[in-house]
Amino acid sequence: MTEESDIRFYFDFSSPYSYLASERIDDLAAKYRRKVKWRPVMLGAAIKATSGLPLLLSVPLKGEYSKRDIERSARFMGVPYTFPPKFPLATLIAARGYYWLHGQDCDKAREFAHAVFRAYWVDGRDIGELPVVLEIADKLGIDRAAFAAAIATPEIKDRVKQETDAAIAGGMFGAPFFSVDGERFWGADRLPQIDRWLETGGF
Amino acid sequence: MTEESDIRFYFDFSSPYSYLASERIDDLAAKYRRKVKWRPVMLGAAIKATSGLPLLLSVPLKGEYSKRDIERSARFMGVPYTFPPKFPLATLIAARGYYWLHGQDCDKAREFAHAVFRAYWVDGRDIGELPVVLEIADKLGIDRAAFAAAIATPEIKDRVKQETDAAIAGGMFGAPFFSVDGERFWGADRLPQIDRWLETGGF
Repeated sequence: MTEESDIRFYFDFSSPYSYLASERIDDLAAKYRRKVKWRPVMLGAAIKATSGLPLLLSVPLKGEYSKRDIERSARFMGVPYTFPPKFPLATLIAARGYYWLHGQDCDKAREFAHAVFRAYWVDGRDIGELPVVLEIADKLGIDRAAFAAAIATPEIKDRVKQETDAAIAGGMFGAPFFSVDGERFWGADRLPQIDRWLETGGF
Repeated sequence: MTEESDIRFYFDFSSPYSYLASERIDDLAAKYRRKVKWRPVMLGAAIKATSGLPLLLSVPLKGEYSKRDIERSARFMGVPYTFPPKFPLATLIAARGYYWLHGQDCDKAREFAHAVFRAYWVDGRDIGELPVVLEIADKLGIDRAAFAAAIATPEIKDRVKQETDAAIAGGMFGAPFFSVDGERFWGADRLPQIDRWLETGGF
């Protein structure tokens, strides 16, 4: 196994296709007895670094199509989805919280990530606001005060930046982005290719 | 049947994902006893109209990824593919030739379109050059002189522009682009969704 023999899932909580992928990637990997490393990043920084444009904002025709495509893709994949009242929004608080939890309990961090995604993409909650994120954490038995204190530390703040920089250095320019044993895939619509890649070891 | 009860496939001969889709869309539609209307367009005009960026040219990281993704997608779909020595190139001659042929013989026009796509994306021929396109036509039994004369007429020149404008008015901003009984799909990777759409009448 080389250093790159792993599956990484880079995402931003505000990315709808990331949410769709988040509902399927672990089950897909589990078919091959593999686990996935989840890595929330700041997609805005990645887009700036690679000179891209936010899909839903900058290109009128494309934006209209994209909204429709996301809804249809959600139905195609069988994932509950509702376009949220506020879009886009800042996901720094949620990403910081994820890495703090991850340092203590990977499973709890994963549970938190799912809860954040669903709060935004199913229930339309404003996950950019601290009280909302604290409420999500609280429901999972996470201490609100400890959470609030942790995400204000320089270590956790730096961690999100470092993970984002590392992802960009690794080739990420959009989300969801996957590194599967070193092979890169972009988009929830590449899950079928990832499936075959895991099945065959590359094609 | 409404005016929109048809399947349209908008493409540019210089679009690699359009080529991949061209090798599968007719067979997919045939499963449901449906036919596809092929419509070559000038993708550059569409991108300009919608403020997008050429995928392989403007975004460094994305461009590198895209080349890899196209190759992998071709293998995933089982379609022969080689990145051509010249990219991009002008596809106006081929598009004009297509519409001229289409006015006389739809099947011959389809055969010509496949031959042009394959000459570029398998054999690496410069399909932007008239002699190359005439040679492709000649092999299909099409008269070279008649072809060369036809593509220089104002009617045929206008036709390509009209088809491109109509496609943009219909929502196209990239290629391949599909209109399936009024529902729009963008990308060769949406063929599975098109398949289900045709099977279920919408989902």
